[in-house]
Amino acid sequence: MALSDIKPAERNESGIALAVQILKQRFGDNFSTGEALRRQHAHSTTYIPAQLPDGVVFAESADDVQQAVQICADNKVPIVPFGTGTSLEGHVNAPAGGISIDVSRMNRVIEVHAEDLDCTVEPGITRKQLNEYLRDTGLFFPIDPGADASLGGMAATRASGTNAVRYGTMRDNVISLDVVLPNGRKITTAKRARKSSAGYDLTRLIVGSEGTLGVITSLTLRLQGIPQAISAGVCPFPTLDAAANAVIMTIQMGIPVARIELVNELQMKAIVEYSKLDLPISPCLFVEFHGSDAGVKEQAETFGEIAAELGSSGFIWSTREEERLKLWQARHDAYWACIALRPGAKAVATDVCVPISRLADCIAETEVDIEEAGLVAPIVGHAGDGNFHVSVLVDDTNPKEIEALENFVERLNTRALAMGGTCTGEHGIGQGKMKFLEMELGGALDVMRAVKRAIDPDNIMNPGKIVRL
Amino acid sequence: MALSDIKPAERNESGIALAVQILKQRFGDNFSTGEALRRQHAHSTTYIPAQLPDGVVFAESADDVQQAVQICADNKVPIVPFGTGTSLEGHVNAPAGGISIDVSRMNRVIEVHAEDLDCTVEPGITRKQLNEYLRDTGLFFPIDPGADASLGGMAATRASGTNAVRYGTMRDNVISLDVVLPNGRKITTAKRARKSSAGYDLTRLIVGSEGTLGVITSLTLRLQGIPQAISAGVCPFPTLDAAANAVIMTIQMGIPVARIELVNELQMKAIVEYSKLDLPISPCLFVEFHGSDAGVKEQAETFGEIAAELGSSGFIWSTREEERLKLWQARHDAYWACIALRPGAKAVATDVCVPISRLADCIAETEVDIEEAGLVAPIVGHAGDGNFHVSVLVDDTNPKEIEALENFVERLNTRALAMGGTCTGEHGIGQGKMKFLEMELGGALDVMRAVKRAIDPDNIMNPGKIVRL
Repeated sequence: MALSDIKPAERNESGIALAVQILKQRFGDNFSTGEALRRQHAHSTTYIPAQLPDGVVFAESADDVQQAVQICADNKVPIVPFGTGTSLEGHVNAPAGGISIDVSRMNRVIEVHAEDLDCTVEPGITRKQLNEYLRDTGLFFPIDPGADASLGGMAATRASGTNAVRYGTMRDNVISLDVVLPNGRKITTAKRARKSSAGYDLTRLIVGSEGTLGVITSLTLRLQGIPQAISAGVCPFPTLDAAANAVIMTIQMGIPVARIELVNELQMKAIVEYSKLDLPISPCLFVEFHGSDAGVKEQAETFGEIAAELGSSGFIWSTREEERLKLWQARHDAYWACIALRPGAKAVATDVCVPISRLADCIAETEVDIEEAGLVAPIVGHAGDGNFHVSVLVDDTNPKEIEALENFVERLNTRALAMGGTCTGEHGIGQGKMKFLEMELGGALDVMRAVKRAIDPDNIMNPGKIVRL
Repeated sequence: MALSDIKPAERNESGIALAVQILKQRFGDNFSTGEALRRQHAHSTTYIPAQLPDGVVFAESADDVQQAVQICADNKVPIVPFGTGTSLEGHVNAPAGGISIDVSRMNRVIEVHAEDLDCTVEPGITRKQLNEYLRDTGLFFPIDPGADASLGGMAATRASGTNAVRYGTMRDNVISLDVVLPNGRKITTAKRARKSSAGYDLTRLIVGSEGTLGVITSLTLRLQGIPQAISAGVCPFPTLDAAANAVIMTIQMGIPVARIELVNELQMKAIVEYSKLDLPISPCLFVEFHGSDAGVKEQAETFGEIAAELGSSGFIWSTREEERLKLWQARHDAYWACIALRPGAKAVATDVCVPISRLADCIAETEVDIEEAGLVAPIVGHAGDGNFHVSVLVDDTNPKEIEALENFVERLNTRALAMGGTCTGEHGIGQGKMKFLEMELGGALDVMRAVKRAIDPDNIMNPGKIVRL
C-alpha cells in the first residue's frame, strides 16, 4: 500500500486526444474536460493522491454508455466508471488518464415486481433514493454501506453494510446485470428467476469486479419485505473483548439478528459527541432485530441473556422509529464523527474481515497496535460478519504520519490474513489493497489476470485496479 | 436438446494412448480401463447416450488429482471430473474420450470450525456422509439435491434442493474452494472469512462451472445450527393452482419457510404408492418450518391461514422426527417413485425456474401441454424458488417417444424463458441444455467462452459441456 506503488501509468496521448474530440462532438454539454469536474471525479476518500481522468461523460442511458465505451475502445483509451465517488481504495482514480463515465444521471427505477420481491434499476440510483421510491410498496433494499452510494458502485465493489449479517451482501442480492463490455457490446448476465444453474455465474463475476470488466447499465435486485416489527438498541459492555464475545455467541446460537455493530470506546466517544447521543462512552454493540412481534421479543430476550452473562449493564432501547433512525444515522455517520476527533485530519478508513471466532483476538491485538503506534484510530465493525473498520486519522501532508499509517495497515492486513481472514470485507481492492490481495490469494491472481485479459484484452476498463497485468 | 446435437467429438488418439500408458504406471490399481467401469463413469440419469472415457483414475488426494491433470494436460487429453455420477444433463459423458478423474475416495472431513459455522471437506464426500459426520456438533449442511450427491459435484452444478428457499443454494454456501486448474496448478479461491470483497469472485466462478474450469479438491462450506424446533407436514389443495398460489403468498408474506415443495396429483399418486404413505392423492405442498418453538408455531399458523383461504382441507402434520424423515425421504424418492409409474421406462428429469409470480401459470400450462402431448410426466418442485421438475417417463428405445420428449422439453424451456425464467434452476447445462442456454443468455455466452478459453486454452477440462467453443 506504499504510495510509491501507486504510479501514474503510461498514457496513450494521441488516442486520448482523439477520443476527447469525438466525445465532445457526440455528447456536447454532457461531456466536460473542466479541471474541477475532473478532479471531483478522481475524488477519493482515501489518502491516495488523485489521478485525474481527461474528461467526464455524463451518460443518460445505456445507449450513451455503449457509445462512450465504443469511442474509448476504438481509440484504446481507459474508461473509469463513476457512480457517487464514495469508494475508499482509489477505485475512481485514472492512473493512465482516460474518460470517466459518470452514470449518476441514470438513476431511474425501471420496474418493481413487488409480487416477486425484485426490482430493476439504473446504476446511478443511490440506496436512499431506491428505498425512498420503494417506501409505499412495503419492501426495502437492505444493503447499506456508510455512504449513500450508487447501486452500480455498490455492485462493482461487492458492498455490504450493517444489514449483511441477516440479508447478505451485494453478492447475494443482485439477480442480474446489464453490462457494457470493453468491446462496446451489451450483455445481460442472467434472467429474473430467484436461482439458476445456467452456465458460468457472470452476475457474480461482475459483482466485485470494480469496473474492470465492464460498465453496469442496469441491475435487477432482490428486495425484502419490511418486517412487521423492528427493535433496536445499544448495549454497553465493560470491555471490547466482552462485546466481541457477545457477537460470537449471538451468531453461534443462530439468533437471526438483523444488525450487530461493534463500536470501540474511542469510536463511541466520537459518535456520541458528533451525533449528540445520550449514551455511555464504553465499548458498545448497536443491535437490531427484525421479525414478527413475538419473534423480535424472543430474539431480544435471548440476546439480552447473552449480554448480561458477559457483563453488559443492559440494553438501552430505541423503541420509537425516530429514535431508531437517529441511532442508525449516528452509526452511518461514524466516518464523519471520526474526522471531528481530529479536525483537519484525513480519516483513512480501512477494513479487514476474519472468521468470527477470531474477531475478539483480532480487534484486541489491533487496539494494542494502535496504542503502540501512537495513532488515533477508532474501530467500528459489522461484527456479525467478522468485518471491522479502522479509521486512522492522519495529517496527509506529513510523510511521517503517512509512513506510520502504511506500516499500520500492513500489520493489520498481515494479522487478519494470518487468522484466516481477508484483506477486505467490503471496501474492495482498488489501488490501495493490491499488495494484500497478492498476499491473500497468491496463485489465484493468475486466474483473475487471465479472466481480465480475456474480457478486456486492451486493458481499457478501469486499468490499474485489483490486479497488475 | 436433440440427440443429434450431442455428437462424439474428435479424439486425440495418440495423446490418449500415451496418457493411458503413463497413468497406468503412475496409478497402478487406482487406474482402470475396464469397460464396465468406464461405462459406469459415463452413467447418465438422462436419456442422453453414454459416451465413455478411456480410463478412470481413482484419486485419493489433491496430489493425485494434480498429477492426473498434469499427465492429461501434457498430452492434451480431456478430463472429466466425477463424483457420484448423479448429474442429470450428461455432465460426465466424454464426447472426445479422455480420462475420468473419480474423487469418490476423497471423502474425508478435513476440519470443522463449529465456532465459525463452517467446515472443510474433500470433494467426494456425499451430503448424507457429511451430515452424519456433523450430527454430534449441533450443525448441519442444508443443501439436499434428490440424489446423495458428492459435495464437489454439487458445487460444480450449483445444486440446490428442498432447503434452498431458506438456506440458499451451493452458490450461497460455499466459502472457498481448492481447485486444480487445467494447467495442473492448484489455487485457493478465497479465505475462510464469511464475506470478502477481495477481487474477482473465483469461488462463484467455479461453482456452477460443471468441471469445465478445473477439478475441485476441497471445499469450505457454511454450516447451519440445527434448529431448536422443526415442524413439517403435508397440505392437500383442491387444485394445483391453489397450491401454487399458496406458495406465492407464503413467499410474498416473508414467512421464513424452510421447505415448501409442490407435488402435482400424478406425482402424489406415484409417491403415495412407492413410499406407502397414508396421504390423499391430490395436489399437495410438503412444508417444513425451522426456528424456535414459538417461531415455528407462529409460522405454521400464518401458513395455515393462507392454505385455508385457498381451499386446503388442512394440514397433516408429521410431529415425530421419524415421521418427518419418512416424509422427506418420500419426497427425495420422487424420482424413483416416478419410474415405478411406468416400469421399464426411463424417467427423464428436466427442470426450469421462473419468477414465483409466474409459477402457477407456468405449471398450469405445462400440465395442459403434457396432457395434449400424451406424455406421462409427474411434476414436483422447489416451489418457493419458482423451480420445478418434470419427470417424463419414456421408452428410450422408441425414437417416436424420444422425439415427443424433445419437443416437450423445447416447449417447456421456451415457456419458462418467455416468463422471465431460466432453463435450469439446479440441474445445470451439461450437454442437454446447451441450446437453451444460448436462447436464454445470447451474447453473454461469448463472455463464458472467453473465460473458458482463458482458463482452459486447450479445452481439456470436461469439453463439450455448457458452451461450444
